[in-house]
Amino acid sequence: MIGEDGTPPTVRELGEFALIERINAGRRQGPQVLLGPGDDAAVVAAPDGRFAVSTDMLVEGRHFRLDWSTPHDVGRKAIAQNAADVFAMGARPTAFVVALGCPADTPVEVIDGLAAGMWAEAERVGASVAGGDLVRSREVVVSITAFGDLGGLPPITRAGARPGHVVAVAGRLGWSAAGLAVLTTGAAPDGPGAEAVALHRVPHPPYEAAPVGGGPRPHALTDVSDGLLADLGHIADASGVAIDLSASALRDDALTALAATMNVDARQWVLGGGEDHAFVGAWAREAPLPPGWRAIGTVRAGSGVTVDGMSWDGAVGWESFRGAEAAPGNEPR
Amino acid sequence: MIGEDGTPPTVRELGEFALIERINAGRRQGPQVLLGPGDDAAVVAAPDGRFAVSTDMLVEGRHFRLDWSTPHDVGRKAIAQNAADVFAMGARPTAFVVALGCPADTPVEVIDGLAAGMWAEAERVGASVAGGDLVRSREVVVSITAFGDLGGLPPITRAGARPGHVVAVAGRLGWSAAGLAVLTTGAAPDGPGAEAVALHRVPHPPYEAAPVGGGPRPHALTDVSDGLLADLGHIADASGVAIDLSASALRDDALTALAATMNVDARQWVLGGGEDHAFVGAWAREAPLPPGWRAIGTVRAGSGVTVDGMSWDGAVGWESFRGAEAAPGNEPR
Repeated sequence: MIGEDGTPPTVRELGEFALIERINAGRRQGPQVLLGPGDDAAVVAAPDGRFAVSTDMLVEGRHFRLDWSTPHDVGRKAIAQNAADVFAMGARPTAFVVALGCPADTPVEVIDGLAAGMWAEAERVGASVAGGDLVRSREVVVSITAFGDLGGLPPITRAGARPGHVVAVAGRLGWSAAGLAVLTTGAAPDGPGAEAVALHRVPHPPYEAAPVGGGPRPHALTDVSDGLLADLGHIADASGVAIDLSASALRDDALTALAATMNVDARQWVLGGGEDHAFVGAWAREAPLPPGWRAIGTVRAGSGVTVDGMSWDGAVGWESFRGAEAAPGNEPR
Repeated sequence: MIGEDGTPPTVRELGEFALIERINAGRRQGPQVLLGPGDDAAVVAAPDGRFAVSTDMLVEGRHFRLDWSTPHDVGRKAIAQNAADVFAMGARPTAFVVALGCPADTPVEVIDGLAAGMWAEAERVGASVAGGDLVRSREVVVSITAFGDLGGLPPITRAGARPGHVVAVAGRLGWSAAGLAVLTTGAAPDGPGAEAVALHRVPHPPYEAAPVGGGPRPHALTDVSDGLLADLGHIADASGVAIDLSASALRDDALTALAATMNVDARQWVLGGGEDHAFVGAWAREAPLPPGWRAIGTVRAGSGVTVDGMSWDGAVGWESFRGAEAAPGNEPR
C-alpha cells in the first residue's frame, strides 16, 4: 500500500480503525482464546481456574532502537520477554494483549513489522495476540501483558530456594549484553560478534527447557532479565538464603574470546548483563538436572550472592531510572 | 519524604525498586488475587475457567493533562475506563495490572497519586492491582490491563442486537465532553460547569447498573468511550442492524443550559462525546428495563445509526491519529 505521494502511508493517513483491522487481518487465534479482538474485551481460557499474568513496557530509545533492530525484532523481543516471565512461574503462555503507542507519522510498515514479530514469537510458544489498544504518543511504546496456564500446579516463585539446592541455568548468559557492546562500538560484527548482536536483537529464551507440564520442577525459578547476579539476588532475598556461583561453571569460551577482541571482561556480561531471558532455578540435589540445564552454583544459609565465595564488585544489573541519560537502548526489561 | 535539597524526590532519586516497594506498601489484594506483586508474574483466580481481558494505554498530553487533572484523578480514570470495558462484556472486574512509564525527573508524589487513584477506583469495583511494571519514558504513559469474571455466563458482545430490541443507556452522556469544553475555555467553572469538569477528570461509569450476576441481561452491550454514535455504530456493524435514537429521550436539560451559556449545541456533546463510560445496550422489548437504565432508541433492520430517522452531520466520535495535533488532552480512550 502506497500513499498518494508515492511514499508508504503513515498511521495518521491510515487511521486507527483501519490500522487495527490491518493488524488483525488473517490472524488465527490459538485455542485458548475464546473471543478475540473486536469487542470491549477478549475472553481467554483458564483451564484450572487461575491464570499467571505478567506485564512489561518497552520504550523506544530506552529498551530498543529502531536503527539497531527491525520492528519485527522488537515485536519478537517484546513477546519473548513476557513469555519468559510466564514460563518462569512454571506456566505455559496462553495469550498476550498488546497496547501500542506511536507518533502519527510512524510509517505503517513499522506497525506491520511489530505486529508480525509479535505474532511470530507468540506462535512459537503456542499462543496468540488476543487483543490490544492503539494510541498516539510521542515515542513508540509497546506494553505487553502475557497470560499463562499453570496446569493445576502451584506457581514456582522466587521464594522456594533452600540451603543444599543446586543453582542451575538453562539458556545463554551474557550474549545480549555482548551484542549491545558490539552495537555500541559501531563496528560491523562478524562471527561470535554477529551472533551476539542477533541475540541482543531477539533473545532466545530456552522455552523447551522450561519446567512446565509433568516433568521435574525446581523449587525456585526466575528468568534472567536484569542480570544474573541481580535476578539471583531476588531469589536469595525472597527465599532468605545465600547463593554462591562457580566462576568456572559460568565460563563461556566463545564469549571470552569475543570480549578479548574488545579488551573487556566477559564476566561482566555474564554476571551483570540481562535480557538473555535464560531461566535460573534452585533444584533439589538428589535428582539429575533435566536436559538443557547446567549447574552453576549452590544455595547456602545466609544472604546475598557471591562468586567463588567472593562479592563481585562490577555492576550487578539494571534498574530503571538509575544511570546516565546517554546511551539509549541499553536498558533491559 | 523530602530530598536532600528540600524538594520532593524524583523517581530517579528514589530508584525503580524502592519506588515499586513504596507503591505496593500496605496494599491489600482482593480475594481474586492468589499471588500479588513481587515475582515474575502474578496469579489471578478465574473461577469459571475463563477470564475477560481488556487493555488501554493513556498518554500524557493526549488522554490526560496533569495541569488539568491531579495524578489521583488520572489513576482513577485509567482504572475506570478499563473496568467499564470489563463490565461491558457482562463480567465483574477481578484484578488489574499496570505498566507505567515516566521521565526520571517525575516527582515521586505524581507516582504516589497515580497509584493511590488506581487503587481507590479498583477497590470501588471490588478488585485490586495485582502487579505491574515501571520504566523510564519521555512522557507519562499508563497502560492498564483489566480482568473480569463472567460468572459462568456467555460474554455480552456487540453482535447480539436484533430488530425490535430497545436501545437503552445507563449513566450520563456528554458530561465529560462538556467538562473538556469548559476546561478549554480556561474560565473558572461553577454549577453544572464544575460538575462537568469533575466528570471529565474522573468518569463515573454506572457500575451498579452493569448487568453482572443473575439479573436481566441485554443482548448486546458496550460502554460509551468513543462517543454514543460511534459506539452504537460498532454495535450496529457487529450485529448487522440499524439503530435509531430519539432526540427527545437524549435531551439533558442541565447540559443544554450549560451549552447555551457557551453558545454551543449540547447534542454534539451527547452524541459525539466519549469518555463518560455510560453503558449502552440492546434489550428485549418485553421485559421492563432494570433500575438505572433508560430507553433512548430502537433497533431496526438495515445499517447505520440515525437520530429521529436522520443522519447526524456533526462529528460522531473519536479516532486515534486523526485530527489536529493541537488541543492535547482531548482524546478519549
